[in-house]
Amino acid sequence: MAVRKYMPGVEVRLWARRKSPLTFAREHKLADTCSQNLFETVGGAELVVLCTPTSTFLDLAKEFEQGLGERAIVTDVGSTKKDVHTGVGSFLEESGHVFVGSHPMAGSEKQGIEHAQANLFENAVVALTNESRADDNTLSRIAHFWRTLGASVFTTNAVAHDSLVAAISHVPHIFAALAARTAASDKRSNVDALSTLASTGFRDTTRVCSGSPELWTDILTQNAEAICPYLEQSVADQQRVLQLLREGRREELLQWLKEAKQARESIC
Amino acid sequence: MAVRKYMPGVEVRLWARRKSPLTFAREHKLADTCSQNLFETVGGAELVVLCTPTSTFLDLAKEFEQGLGERAIVTDVGSTKKDVHTGVGSFLEESGHVFVGSHPMAGSEKQGIEHAQANLFENAVVALTNESRADDNTLSRIAHFWRTLGASVFTTNAVAHDSLVAAISHVPHIFAALAARTAASDKRSNVDALSTLASTGFRDTTRVCSGSPELWTDILTQNAEAICPYLEQSVADQQRVLQLLREGRREELLQWLKEAKQARESIC
Repeated sequence: MAVRKYMPGVEVRLWARRKSPLTFAREHKLADTCSQNLFETVGGAELVVLCTPTSTFLDLAKEFEQGLGERAIVTDVGSTKKDVHTGVGSFLEESGHVFVGSHPMAGSEKQGIEHAQANLFENAVVALTNESRADDNTLSRIAHFWRTLGASVFTTNAVAHDSLVAAISHVPHIFAALAARTAASDKRSNVDALSTLASTGFRDTTRVCSGSPELWTDILTQNAEAICPYLEQSVADQQRVLQLLREGRREELLQWLKEAKQARESIC
Repeated sequence: MAVRKYMPGVEVRLWARRKSPLTFAREHKLADTCSQNLFETVGGAELVVLCTPTSTFLDLAKEFEQGLGERAIVTDVGSTKKDVHTGVGSFLEESGHVFVGSHPMAGSEKQGIEHAQANLFENAVVALTNESRADDNTLSRIAHFWRTLGASVFTTNAVAHDSLVAAISHVPHIFAALAARTAASDKRSNVDALSTLASTGFRDTTRVCSGSPELWTDILTQNAEAICPYLEQSVADQQRVLQLLREGRREELLQWLKEAKQARESIC
């Protein structure tokens, strides 16, 4: 939809494993061709964007690799990058093709083609990772693609990327889940009363954990190495705030909350 | 501002300790009188709403109690209720006056009279607590007041209230703070890169921790008894998810995330 909007005239081909999203895409004229045949879809394409779970990339690439044209660039929209480069990136490089990792920092907790938005990438940031030694010309082409869709581009390496997104997205996702689980788990509180009292604060703090559990299992598992040190640190931080509360240490609690506010405001 | 909007003709008197909010209120015609004299402000009022930090309520009540009229109701907007009833509620009851606790589940992370909004209570829920044995007539008057400002009313007791808000608001606040602290604390990640990659997810998950650290120190300290059991439980839950990630236990992680999504959706 974004390509349709910002790159009119460009041929868009959509592949999906299941029929229903293709039917939806056909009805809404989201692409020029909508097909379950991966090899045919990829054949002759200038740019291939992998938008399935990252764990499926390598198998898909093995299926379509023979159909890739000379100048084709393959990229993705996966939330982790080290595993993507180790897997599909290395495979394509070894097969003589070009892969650049992309991670558009955009999306919502909603799933499925019916929630797709043409303006999803407007003002978003796309992280680019180039572990497969793509040349500068390739990098400018892929950067140009994302910029044309309204995004800005941030180039980094896979390890730094995975650590950054662990800090800014994956660990906050776990906290959102913990907040929802903790609120609902208590035997003394009934859900009706919680539901009555839930305000925008609870809704916002926990929003992301309404995202697809399947997708997030992939993301968290694939980035576990980067996530775990943060989680260990935060368990210790949580035990500390628990102690401050138990012992009524107001001044230290105030300092702890001030640091949190400063931390957020330095990032946002 | 809400009383002005929804109860035109009602006399509004504003007291504050400092001059600057009174000057702002006078300039914007938010009240009929704006004064630093508490006794005069309260004198003859039908309804007194305490909107200062809960730790100040008792001292304020001691100052104005002699000026309260026969039919006056005192209420508050504090985020905790057990301490409020033990303190100012008991004092006023013993002095022959009427106190009903109110907690409007509304607000934002922004502080100060310049962020006041006339529509703050529209569609909000106000929890009422009646530990000081106010009669039914008094309860309907205070419920009517909040409903007139656009809110709906939920009656509960102080202990249940404090446990519910610990679950739905105070513990999520701590998680928001933990997420912000954890993201910013890492030495490997620089703040510029985090800032570049921060999307609506991070902004929403951590939003509430931009609230006043002073106000939240009060809230968390006063409700520590209700908060601590939840925090203990969530430390254990966090250790569990850490173990699932370390050991790559996908199925259990998927289940954990599904429970979080269900928990959120049962409440929101």
